[in-house]
Amino acid sequence: MPEIPFTKGHGTGNDFVIVADPEGELDLSADQVAALCDRHFGIGADGLLRVVRSRAISDGSAAIAEDGDAEWFMDYRNADGSIAEMCGNGVRVFARYLLDTGLAHDGGSALAIGTRAGVKRVTRSDDGFRVDLGGWRAGREDPLVRAKGLRVARPGMNIDLGNPHTVVALASDDELAGLDLTVIPQIDPVPANGANVEFVVPADPLVVGGVGHVRMRVFERGVGETLSCGTGTVAAALAVRSWAGEGAPDTWRVDVPGGTLGVHMSQGDGGERVALSGPATLVYSGTVTLA
Amino acid sequence: MPEIPFTKGHGTGNDFVIVADPEGELDLSADQVAALCDRHFGIGADGLLRVVRSRAISDGSAAIAEDGDAEWFMDYRNADGSIAEMCGNGVRVFARYLLDTGLAHDGGSALAIGTRAGVKRVTRSDDGFRVDLGGWRAGREDPLVRAKGLRVARPGMNIDLGNPHTVVALASDDELAGLDLTVIPQIDPVPANGANVEFVVPADPLVVGGVGHVRMRVFERGVGETLSCGTGTVAAALAVRSWAGEGAPDTWRVDVPGGTLGVHMSQGDGGERVALSGPATLVYSGTVTLA
Repeated sequence: MPEIPFTKGHGTGNDFVIVADPEGELDLSADQVAALCDRHFGIGADGLLRVVRSRAISDGSAAIAEDGDAEWFMDYRNADGSIAEMCGNGVRVFARYLLDTGLAHDGGSALAIGTRAGVKRVTRSDDGFRVDLGGWRAGREDPLVRAKGLRVARPGMNIDLGNPHTVVALASDDELAGLDLTVIPQIDPVPANGANVEFVVPADPLVVGGVGHVRMRVFERGVGETLSCGTGTVAAALAVRSWAGEGAPDTWRVDVPGGTLGVHMSQGDGGERVALSGPATLVYSGTVTLA
Repeated sequence: MPEIPFTKGHGTGNDFVIVADPEGELDLSADQVAALCDRHFGIGADGLLRVVRSRAISDGSAAIAEDGDAEWFMDYRNADGSIAEMCGNGVRVFARYLLDTGLAHDGGSALAIGTRAGVKRVTRSDDGFRVDLGGWRAGREDPLVRAKGLRVARPGMNIDLGNPHTVVALASDDELAGLDLTVIPQIDPVPANGANVEFVVPADPLVVGGVGHVRMRVFERGVGETLSCGTGTVAAALAVRSWAGEGAPDTWRVDVPGGTLGVHMSQGDGGERVALSGPATLVYSGTVTLA
């Protein structure tokens, strides 16, 4: 049973075990990842980030990373040990780890990080790190959402950011606080692959100094309520901007239970793009014995 | 902001941050303890165990520890930073830490550990460690307990083990599994200081090889459902033994969501005593910066 070093970090309360494995020698099974992420019997985290050189990745994702200029690949695993494509909070924590440990250097240009959803570019920002998430797709139909604590069903907006989201606007902070998200919200029609559900309250005034402002709680599919969901924050800002209509700003501040994130829309070569910004913190380091 | 070493451990899933402070130089504020025990922004634990020499304890508890022969004092804090007297799972993890790190040695006699509830004696056992918890007190009246998932109120038994417990017997494992402990159970009459509520199902057959067997879920006051509660396990065994009547065994096995604990009744000088036994595991070590 080898002993491995690790670091624990979080972005707005979305927390990760980070394991450095530059040469790709660590074959972590789903059971081992689940044991490390267990909050009572292990280290405890929402997911695990394995830090591996792109050239040392042995699975099909290698092509994705090596296609770009990403020296490092983020092998992201969910807390249950399953493989995931990307994580908007995780990729900022990953960048923080690379820079703080000296595995990568802050050369002024964006840091390219390979993920199963392609190469992501991360830059420093006033609030921490900013990652370009590329484009998105709005759904064709507006679903109805029911949740415990809401007397009637509410219309939502489907937004796909690589993973599926349904955003629902509520009337007030009281209504947001009164939601019981220990019970899974119901989406009608039911999305083929489920969806994360974001409940948002547009602030009043909505825009201050050119920045839109919303508050949000999120129910992540297969997980339950979480302190933060990076792509969910982006979906929330996109939906509220759409509802606000013409003249709505391209920069948004989204308050989640775990902190504050920024969402930034811009025109790129292939159409509109969106970026997520926010803090990334390393909390402690240790060594653990792999079972 | 000093960096301090720590170890993380658990007993049947009840988990603790352990901080060695032999000379009592570390003045941890309630806020610092709460930050360390936060499961997303800190290390994450049900509580913190500060390992300090009894002679270096500066508060009123020193007298308690020095009255005995306890070289080491367990300064136990709840996850919210408040001070607690004792913890049946914590004291086993504390003993494991002392012995594994060489701060104490296994001399064949019981290891004396100072706590705010007096000196506790811990010995090795087949299932890990065994701690003598002393006497207890049964309540004079039987309360009624209501819980979400139970159609009707059930009679319970009040048992005081230094902290207050109300034990309720259920009919089947299905009934136990169907309880919704996200909702606080109601005790009538309401105990003056609240109570932990243990829901137990006596096994069928109840006794195998001279050992009684119950399954249990617990709602800890001020916390919610937990994976394990040491004194709750003892209260559960005492109540079921009382209900089972004459001839019931003095050794019990209690299955909790986080594992299995043993309860052992015996006659001592001052009346009947009870001991708790079970595993204690150190999971990892690290260093963290105190905020």
